[in-house]
Amino acid sequence: MSAERKTLDERQQMTDLERLRHSCAHVMATAILRIWPDAQFAYGPPIDSGFYYDFEMKHRITPDDFEKIEAEMKKIAKENQKFERRVISREEAKAMAESGRLGGLSERPGNPSRFKLDLIDKIPEGEEISCFQNGEFIDLCAGPHVGYTAKCKNVKLMSVSSSFYMGDESKGSLQRLYGTAFENKELLEQHLVRLEEAKKRDHRRLGRELHLFHIDEEVGQGLILWKPKGALIRRSLQDFITAELDKQGYSQVFTPHIGKLDLYRTSGHFPYYQESQYPAIAERDVLEKLADEDATCSQLINGLSDGTYEGYMLKPMNCPHHIKIFASEHRSYRDLPVRLAEFGTVYRWEQSGELGGMTRVRGFTQDDAHLFCTPDQVAEEVTKCLDLVKKVLGTLGMGDYRVRLSLRDPDSDKYVGKAENWDKAENALRSAVQVLGVEYTEELGEAAFYGPKIDFVVKDVIGRDWQLGTVQVDYNLPERFKLSYIGADNTQHTPVMIHRAPFGSLERFTGLLIEHFEGKFPTWLAPEQVRVLPISEKTLETAEAVTAKLADAGIRVSIDRDSDKIGAKIRNARLERIPYMLVIGQREEEEGTVSVRHRDKDDLGSKPVDEFLAELKAEIAERRL
Amino acid sequence: MSAERKTLDERQQMTDLERLRHSCAHVMATAILRIWPDAQFAYGPPIDSGFYYDFEMKHRITPDDFEKIEAEMKKIAKENQKFERRVISREEAKAMAESGRLGGLSERPGNPSRFKLDLIDKIPEGEEISCFQNGEFIDLCAGPHVGYTAKCKNVKLMSVSSSFYMGDESKGSLQRLYGTAFENKELLEQHLVRLEEAKKRDHRRLGRELHLFHIDEEVGQGLILWKPKGALIRRSLQDFITAELDKQGYSQVFTPHIGKLDLYRTSGHFPYYQESQYPAIAERDVLEKLADEDATCSQLINGLSDGTYEGYMLKPMNCPHHIKIFASEHRSYRDLPVRLAEFGTVYRWEQSGELGGMTRVRGFTQDDAHLFCTPDQVAEEVTKCLDLVKKVLGTLGMGDYRVRLSLRDPDSDKYVGKAENWDKAENALRSAVQVLGVEYTEELGEAAFYGPKIDFVVKDVIGRDWQLGTVQVDYNLPERFKLSYIGADNTQHTPVMIHRAPFGSLERFTGLLIEHFEGKFPTWLAPEQVRVLPISEKTLETAEAVTAKLADAGIRVSIDRDSDKIGAKIRNARLERIPYMLVIGQREEEEGTVSVRHRDKDDLGSKPVDEFLAELKAEIAERRL
Repeated sequence: MSAERKTLDERQQMTDLERLRHSCAHVMATAILRIWPDAQFAYGPPIDSGFYYDFEMKHRITPDDFEKIEAEMKKIAKENQKFERRVISREEAKAMAESGRLGGLSERPGNPSRFKLDLIDKIPEGEEISCFQNGEFIDLCAGPHVGYTAKCKNVKLMSVSSSFYMGDESKGSLQRLYGTAFENKELLEQHLVRLEEAKKRDHRRLGRELHLFHIDEEVGQGLILWKPKGALIRRSLQDFITAELDKQGYSQVFTPHIGKLDLYRTSGHFPYYQESQYPAIAERDVLEKLADEDATCSQLINGLSDGTYEGYMLKPMNCPHHIKIFASEHRSYRDLPVRLAEFGTVYRWEQSGELGGMTRVRGFTQDDAHLFCTPDQVAEEVTKCLDLVKKVLGTLGMGDYRVRLSLRDPDSDKYVGKAENWDKAENALRSAVQVLGVEYTEELGEAAFYGPKIDFVVKDVIGRDWQLGTVQVDYNLPERFKLSYIGADNTQHTPVMIHRAPFGSLERFTGLLIEHFEGKFPTWLAPEQVRVLPISEKTLETAEAVTAKLADAGIRVSIDRDSDKIGAKIRNARLERIPYMLVIGQREEEEGTVSVRHRDKDDLGSKPVDEFLAELKAEIAERRL
Repeated sequence: MSAERKTLDERQQMTDLERLRHSCAHVMATAILRIWPDAQFAYGPPIDSGFYYDFEMKHRITPDDFEKIEAEMKKIAKENQKFERRVISREEAKAMAESGRLGGLSERPGNPSRFKLDLIDKIPEGEEISCFQNGEFIDLCAGPHVGYTAKCKNVKLMSVSSSFYMGDESKGSLQRLYGTAFENKELLEQHLVRLEEAKKRDHRRLGRELHLFHIDEEVGQGLILWKPKGALIRRSLQDFITAELDKQGYSQVFTPHIGKLDLYRTSGHFPYYQESQYPAIAERDVLEKLADEDATCSQLINGLSDGTYEGYMLKPMNCPHHIKIFASEHRSYRDLPVRLAEFGTVYRWEQSGELGGMTRVRGFTQDDAHLFCTPDQVAEEVTKCLDLVKKVLGTLGMGDYRVRLSLRDPDSDKYVGKAENWDKAENALRSAVQVLGVEYTEELGEAAFYGPKIDFVVKDVIGRDWQLGTVQVDYNLPERFKLSYIGADNTQHTPVMIHRAPFGSLERFTGLLIEHFEGKFPTWLAPEQVRVLPISEKTLETAEAVTAKLADAGIRVSIDRDSDKIGAKIRNARLERIPYMLVIGQREEEEGTVSVRHRDKDDLGSKPVDEFLAELKAEIAERRL
């Protein structure tokens, strides 16, 4: 990672895999220099998916070059060069860079290591400077590395793109070559298969092909337009959640998508988090007044920030609105817990570079709820929240998840709320997680300042981790909003709030579901559940009758009236991932049956329409996978 | 109406009732002067609900004075004074005002008619000046009036408030006394009864008492927080509409609540209608750049208006988003009509003085849909839209409505779209309305520039008109957004759009429903459908079992566990307008029955729980009134 400015602590925290990948970056640099000796290297860190190196050279690398570079890298691995660390003085380092030796196979007169020169200048006075050498390649580098290049044989180059030195556009464009590496061949193969799998499942492509959602530049980046078929999935998810909420005694509410800045001043979301929010909407009369007075934009922005001027904000979360509903009535301990739920759409500002499909968006709908309860009720309510998440994930075939329990740092005093309540809540969360019976980790000091929390990390079918639902206890907002209820002792008490969202965001969750199921949604979620396929014109009338019968029973069904051959009709239905195809030929017409095909299980034989319908209804009602 | 500046045309258009009320304003002034001779009168026009007069005087009128003033007005009516018009010169008018004679019973030395002096100055040179005299009272007035004060006997003073001369705060405060008047006693009585009725039904009061919704200053004026019980009503309405949409082949979609300004530049909603929208949200980098450059707020506002800068807007309507979904795929005539529906929340700016409860708001949810069809499909689609509106209004017991058919002015060329398509669409709308079989009026020249439309005007139980649902044909937006489909002739065509919303706005409609039903919602809409009332502790267990049984069947039921007497429990349930109360005493427990009471029909006798449940489920499923 050639002189990347990390602290010693951070370097020592590098995992074995990161160390390996870091060494592979050096091996890759060595190989590139053997082929193109003019290359000048800048940064080369390990990353989550492997490693990269940024460099400048005349030849522009394309994927056609990958084989050649990989071959050279394998040769270097076979040479089994030793990684040797050497501490050098600042003067020595500068001299080596001036001669082109740093990041080179030998001295390169007239071609000094200019990025390394800059990096040396950035190393604070008094800090140790080191270089690493493998074979003929020397690089300015703090390490650490593996022992020998033989370990670097399970590598694969992934992609090439352009980048900027230190992310600074003005310094000209570099090339960035990405690779990945693993400890052994099997792990590498698994990773590559998983990548292929992920590509096949990419929800952005499937979302387009299956007509699920659309993002339009003229509407705005990161804003999802749910097309009819995607909306059917969302409606099914919402109906599912709603049924569970009704059972658990939640009350749904609807609240507006904006709120006055004052609301967020009280909650603390404004102005402190304004960088992650859409800019505020100034009050109309404020704007008019400032325009009249020839005030500047800075005055407007600062005046909104410091509370001189009033305005509105797109809501970044639903809690303040739900709090206002709670506060709109006198509450007694007998009314608690009050559980307010909403499919509430919120808006947050993400950098445009971070946006992608449904999983990184600027507007998303939380399956949100806020529970207002007494301190004594926290345990039972949290347990019920976890039950709900478990039910939800289980129903969707996502049984493979673990839980992160974030607790306070007992040595810190940054936390809001009484210590005894924290103890109570942390114990409540811990025992709820234990009752849940899943793998969990306790993370000390990871709690928010306002309360402990639980996060669910779900593994999808191809083994990727997704952080989803959350259950958080909150002692802060009830204080800030001066919420109260009359206790059994006839005096005022402050309720505890619990924030919880099993899916987190319907957009992100649907994106995950598309990939998890590869678009093959279980029947209860499938936008189209059945397609009726008449073999020819002759059975069209019967096919229409079957279609109507299913539609009347609430099945999402369509009919293929095209003049295509039956094989083509089946192929089309399969491409659209429709669970059931009902083929209707003359025999079926005569017998009053349908010939049932399933998108995965193929031919399921003929059966009477009513029998098929009864089975289908049961499958949907039970939300079978 | 003493010198209010109306054109002759406008004056001649005064209805008989307005003329009567205008005369009553003069009679009221006469009466006030008899009691308080120092009064100086300003304006006194007829208004929708009656009339008022603005004036200044030492005594501050309170409702306690109304009887005395009314008695004097009745006396003046009995005196049967003649209203006499006289044209006077500007000099004569000024002299009369200087002497205090205008707006007085006689000359008032030292107390000139100062508002009249100002009003005279405002009459353009060359325009006729007239005054009206009844008995001893002379007022500067353009008329017209009734013949004699005897007609002014059916009057009632309503309220008093303060106002400003010509609406100008700087000119000091006046008193405004409101009254109403009708042609005969019966009409007056009816009006007063209706007012009482309206007060009893005021959705703002009932909304609070029945916990349906809340408006919070810290969230923002005109923004509705739907509380749990209100949300249940909304959910029931949405479920009802959704079921009908599914039957009619609509597709639901979900779209974000903001869109780029460019989207509204294309649609034409920005910048032309920005006064009726929340101010725009500037792009973050635009704001930062302008702040850096010390630019002014005017530059920002103008730059957003003229398209120099980009930003976002809270969506004032859903059409552009739905258009983007339509445009996201290639469409063939075989795909049409495409019917996209959404419960879409939109935001519009209303002056704060115009806001009130749920019926005048700044954020509202339309039961919106846009149909994209061929010109030939307009007739059938419009007919189906009207069917839907009819079904919706019928189900809610609002059978008393009429239809306004707004057509183009054939002599104007302001309209978008081909004349032949207009003819087709107007004929389609007309015949659809005729098929509907309700009272309708054709209003020439009332069509929007983009297409003809149909509006529904509904009469509620106390006879008030509410403009609700609308069906509009639109040739404009498809052109502006360059929408197209491939026709049977294999060439590109522009589709026609139909906008329609049966309720219009869920907020406004729910406000109307609260008043229409006086909070006594039909069972399928009632937030709480049944309350179970154990007579004492002894039958509590049985009552719990009955409650659980109903809840399992999806009934919105609760139990009253209080130790109150049964009479109090019934009274409470009635106050909350719960349709059914099930009393459970020892006899019911022994017999396995429930004693059923209805909020309006009283005691319905005892019946087995299952029988009650079956009847109740049928009542709900059929959405009986």
